[in-house]
Amino acid sequence: MLKNYEFRRYQMPQEEIKALVKQKREELAAQQLLLKEHKLPVLVLIEGWGAAGKGTLIGNLIKELDPRFFTVINMDVPAEREKRKPFLWRYMEQIPEAGKFVFFDSGWLDELAEDVLDGRADEAVLEQRMQQIRTLERQLKDNGYVVVKLFLQIPKEEQKQRQKKLSGKKDTSWRVAGKDRRQVKNREAYEQVYDRILEATNTGYVPWHVVDAVDKRQALLQVLHILTNQIHQAVENERVLPEILHRDYPLLKMPLLSDVPLNQEMTKEEYKVRLKALQKKLKKLHNRIYRLRIPVVIAYEGWDAAGKGGNIKRLTSALDPRGFEVHPIASPEPHEKARHYLWRFYHRLPKDGHIAIFDRSWYGRVMVERMEGFCSENDWKRAYNEINEFEKELSDWGAIVVKFWVHIDKETQLARFTERQNTPGKEWKITEEDWRNREKWDAYEEAVDEMIARTSTENAPWYIVQSNNKYYARIQAIEILIAEIEKRV
Amino acid sequence: MLKNYEFRRYQMPQEEIKALVKQKREELAAQQLLLKEHKLPVLVLIEGWGAAGKGTLIGNLIKELDPRFFTVINMDVPAEREKRKPFLWRYMEQIPEAGKFVFFDSGWLDELAEDVLDGRADEAVLEQRMQQIRTLERQLKDNGYVVVKLFLQIPKEEQKQRQKKLSGKKDTSWRVAGKDRRQVKNREAYEQVYDRILEATNTGYVPWHVVDAVDKRQALLQVLHILTNQIHQAVENERVLPEILHRDYPLLKMPLLSDVPLNQEMTKEEYKVRLKALQKKLKKLHNRIYRLRIPVVIAYEGWDAAGKGGNIKRLTSALDPRGFEVHPIASPEPHEKARHYLWRFYHRLPKDGHIAIFDRSWYGRVMVERMEGFCSENDWKRAYNEINEFEKELSDWGAIVVKFWVHIDKETQLARFTERQNTPGKEWKITEEDWRNREKWDAYEEAVDEMIARTSTENAPWYIVQSNNKYYARIQAIEILIAEIEKRV
Repeated sequence: MLKNYEFRRYQMPQEEIKALVKQKREELAAQQLLLKEHKLPVLVLIEGWGAAGKGTLIGNLIKELDPRFFTVINMDVPAEREKRKPFLWRYMEQIPEAGKFVFFDSGWLDELAEDVLDGRADEAVLEQRMQQIRTLERQLKDNGYVVVKLFLQIPKEEQKQRQKKLSGKKDTSWRVAGKDRRQVKNREAYEQVYDRILEATNTGYVPWHVVDAVDKRQALLQVLHILTNQIHQAVENERVLPEILHRDYPLLKMPLLSDVPLNQEMTKEEYKVRLKALQKKLKKLHNRIYRLRIPVVIAYEGWDAAGKGGNIKRLTSALDPRGFEVHPIASPEPHEKARHYLWRFYHRLPKDGHIAIFDRSWYGRVMVERMEGFCSENDWKRAYNEINEFEKELSDWGAIVVKFWVHIDKETQLARFTERQNTPGKEWKITEEDWRNREKWDAYEEAVDEMIARTSTENAPWYIVQSNNKYYARIQAIEILIAEIEKRV
Repeated sequence: MLKNYEFRRYQMPQEEIKALVKQKREELAAQQLLLKEHKLPVLVLIEGWGAAGKGTLIGNLIKELDPRFFTVINMDVPAEREKRKPFLWRYMEQIPEAGKFVFFDSGWLDELAEDVLDGRADEAVLEQRMQQIRTLERQLKDNGYVVVKLFLQIPKEEQKQRQKKLSGKKDTSWRVAGKDRRQVKNREAYEQVYDRILEATNTGYVPWHVVDAVDKRQALLQVLHILTNQIHQAVENERVLPEILHRDYPLLKMPLLSDVPLNQEMTKEEYKVRLKALQKKLKKLHNRIYRLRIPVVIAYEGWDAAGKGGNIKRLTSALDPRGFEVHPIASPEPHEKARHYLWRFYHRLPKDGHIAIFDRSWYGRVMVERMEGFCSENDWKRAYNEINEFEKELSDWGAIVVKFWVHIDKETQLARFTERQNTPGKEWKITEEDWRNREKWDAYEEAVDEMIARTSTENAPWYIVQSNNKYYARIQAIEILIAEIEKRV
């Protein structure tokens, strides 16, 4: 897209361009209300050559915008803590909330190109990341985001000239990083890598716009055109339902819940002995994954009163408390609801070498949100694939991903509900909502069966933990986790 | 507190200690419900010598706790982005929410001691930080936190032995950092600095507990005693109102709102000319504070329809968008409400060299929260001092702090409300709540007068921006900001 790029100027007088810029800017300002009203978030990624005028362009774009409705993010080289997360994590962290703009001053294109040119990303990593980028962009788009990608293009000579000029002035010399100088020196190598990534991520749903940035005002006008146009389209197409994709992840064959036997027995004595041995083993493995910097992501789902809490506790009490975190997941808070539904889980991912345990998880999308109508049918039907993609990204990152469905039968639940209600100090564990959910057991069971069937992958398997006997279930979960870790260390 | 410390063991048989540990642990587990019910957050700071057993102690403390109710935080050396915030920022980030425990595995004592010993903190900085620590701890306590500070004490010989042992094992050698070895080598220097900080921060409201950690089980028992006891006391004293303090900050003499003239005039033409010149100047200054790494914190408060938004916009459009952020402040979300009321503002502080503009601010505490009864009388009365302390910390950090009250009279507000209501595209700016607030104008005015009188300090002055004429107000605000920055560069 950059090679043989034809620089083309508008053939109109400056005055006319000025007038058009003014008009388009006003249009963009007016669109703010539209975004607010339609709850549309807008992500603008501005890539391009050093000194191509990214900062100036952003400054000009926002001139008529209400500063409460946008954020500009200068993506520097990733910090140490960011390197310990998936590649796209730091971008996902910063996606806009509904009704707001986020402008990225360079982003994943630039970072990936640098990694390739510096030898930090080989062919396989490059391909993997380009796939991740396509996935993220499509998911954002499908979840109601306006995503606009721009590349500011200038000829090599022009870039050289501009850098010279910037370096000369005291107040702007800090802007010319060593990287920018390197770009001029190795322009062809950069161009090749940029082009490869641009082409691989130039999709029908989120295309790239290469903008002739030689003349700043003309560039601004082009970008205003593109931006207002895409917002306009997004509002127009609001009711067009995204396609429900099924990317080809090899699914594991899983039983139906009703076919899972629950008559296991285990005495307290046996439990105690086995637990002690397993916890010791797990503790050692925790030290090893810490040293090997392998992240572990565990999702717990299950029936109310199935014993998730107690199960998690037996698992964590084997772990060094400095190396794990438990995230209880309740209904999303406003700032979470205003973003892609996977955002709050991304946000809580562990550092590499650490373990994150989610007490309820992103699977809420295809259970409670589906059952209670908190999202549309298209939303939850799309979610199976989105979740598979998310978990694939986690394992590409190197994570061990394990998912537990803590399973009991209906009679056991009733017995436990009743016991909770009648035991002082346990009443808080049982609510009206639990009783209401219980009435929908059969519908939930169908949803759970579908969920397990469609999201049990090699890299992120579901395990049905048989929890009519809590002792048995606890031993089972630890054993599974140990086995999964041992596959890797 | 460490010098001449007398190591004293319990004189009871191990079996008895074991039984007591079990009992106390169960007590702690039972207190979880109490914490949940009373919405008490518990912060446990665990300091002590390297190899004194901090990690093991925490592991033992949490054994009976529900992993959904606690987090263990391993405070490493501060990361680059953390160094660009106030000293206590990264601790404040991690304070527990109501009903939960946070255990800090070392914290501000250790960090400050290292900074002193490495020459990064001189006498003045040390004193300043000890003051900040006392302030934070008192504020947390006053705002309903249980704060427990422990120092695990072991003799020098013991420390040496333990480190040797840890270094020998493959799985634990990573735990013995270079720092720990240095401690053994320079034990006396460390002891001196630790003692100084311990004594300076050993206050009546949040005392230190130096724990004999030679025997791990005995240490655990002591700590369980302390912890359960402090939680017990906190619940008992829940209704005891904290003292309302007035620390001696030199206050600027401020006029009453009713004495501020609002009859300024400015034509659009004059405004345009002056604005252009001022924005140019501000832009230059923005580059300078960026280079000098001076943070700038601006709070905007004012009457509804006073023109805050437009004022902020004229200010920001002079700024490089990569160097500022505007934070619109609405009512707190659940996770914000569950913490110290200043937390969400701490969280949004800029990096040094950046500008953060708060569109409404922490002053909500003494305005809307006071007026609407969202906090108790004791809460808002305490807040004047707490806010002065907060702003003092910001200026100690090096920040320029400026606060604008955007002022109009009652008639002007009415005119603007009416105009908004009748102008298509502006209706969203006016709500029923605005009209209700308007009815309480006089009571609000009294609160604002009190607020301005009591929180206008040399280091964080209030400015009353006269905004009946919006042009005049915008010029005024930029001029003030420029003057404040010029004082410093």
